[in-house]
Amino acid sequence: MSSRSKIAIIVAGGSGQRMGSTVPKQFLELAGKPVLYHTIAAFLAAYEDMHIILVLPEAHKASVATVLTAFDRPPSITLVDGGETRFHSVLNGLKLIKQDAVIFVHDGVRPLVSPALIRTCYEQALAKGSAIPAIALKDSIREVDDEGNMAADRTRFRIIQTPQTFLSEILLPAFDQPYDPLFTDEATVVERFGEEVNLVEGEEQNIKITKPQDLVIAAAFLHQGL
Amino acid sequence: MSSRSKIAIIVAGGSGQRMGSTVPKQFLELAGKPVLYHTIAAFLAAYEDMHIILVLPEAHKASVATVLTAFDRPPSITLVDGGETRFHSVLNGLKLIKQDAVIFVHDGVRPLVSPALIRTCYEQALAKGSAIPAIALKDSIREVDDEGNMAADRTRFRIIQTPQTFLSEILLPAFDQPYDPLFTDEATVVERFGEEVNLVEGEEQNIKITKPQDLVIAAAFLHQGL
Repeated sequence: MSSRSKIAIIVAGGSGQRMGSTVPKQFLELAGKPVLYHTIAAFLAAYEDMHIILVLPEAHKASVATVLTAFDRPPSITLVDGGETRFHSVLNGLKLIKQDAVIFVHDGVRPLVSPALIRTCYEQALAKGSAIPAIALKDSIREVDDEGNMAADRTRFRIIQTPQTFLSEILLPAFDQPYDPLFTDEATVVERFGEEVNLVEGEEQNIKITKPQDLVIAAAFLHQGL
Repeated sequence: MSSRSKIAIIVAGGSGQRMGSTVPKQFLELAGKPVLYHTIAAFLAAYEDMHIILVLPEAHKASVATVLTAFDRPPSITLVDGGETRFHSVLNGLKLIKQDAVIFVHDGVRPLVSPALIRTCYEQALAKGSAIPAIALKDSIREVDDEGNMAADRTRFRIIQTPQTFLSEILLPAFDQPYDPLFTDEATVVERFGEEVNLVEGEEQNIKITKPQDLVIAAAFLHQGL
């Protein structure tokens, strides 16, 4: 199978308001370096020819310098303004993509994604058009509604992670659709476009850092090399 | 509202086969003491008159001594043999309960439950008959079947924790029902018996230790006092 250009759209548009900190969470320190450093480094480690498009609010652009100087050799990164919603942020990144590519859309606050998972996503997207990392639910779940709640079968569900990975000829036209608030991630956009979504096995440690305790957990994972 | 006797059935029947260790996971060390020490200590800290029924396999009874000696004053604990399934293990504990009580059924490998949550469960069970700690799903989910997968609404679901807490006059007759493999937890048994299940807000840090990385996460939570 031939290789393709590889473009990671890393979305770092969060306001950080849940962190109890004025520093947006992607710039908080994890094992001595900004969260976003680890995220970018994982993609660069996966493929030498990876190109990074970093989407972030105008207000945080100045902070990116601290991320880039954490690299021995500052990587080439294209900065793009964040949009009103995740959909619009990703769309801003997609506008820069003209050639056939495999496109990874990744949360800036998932710094523990492994290069191995990124490579699996690339290969699976080449083979099947898309690759969405997903893991099993570990705990029992119950379904709730206005009337109460009832047992639900956790084996019917998967927890979705990123990088949500697609061939450009699927993702680009899918994002030509008008915005819908039900577009919670890229998979839902592609699904609405009529394409099947291909799940791949994700990673327990590929957590999203949204609260202070998530940073503690991420540090523990890094420390143990798990 | 009058107070009731308080009985915690702590189920420590796991075989530890997922831990990559010959020591069952409830006896592994967490912050210098066995996991099960922390679990029992939380219940004793919640109420002075808490009685503990510890359900565990015959083969592990000798290891309990190491848990009890970790206490400054070894607590009074009733040991009961584990059964073939969780249902049968809990049933073995329930057979000892003759008086009206609030019964907490808790996983031995959830050592980070807080005394505050245990007290909330007690009060809510007194008021409503049951109290099941539950937390929101943080990530997107997809529903899978033989045909593929599709977007699902995570806000419709809650992740279930323990202690699953009930008035004895609900839990005891519910466990007179014949065993069904669909009885994955006590809430499903009570629901089958025709009783409504009352959810209360659980705790992020009330994790179940089933894999080596869970122990790392638990240590990080303890270290940070989160």
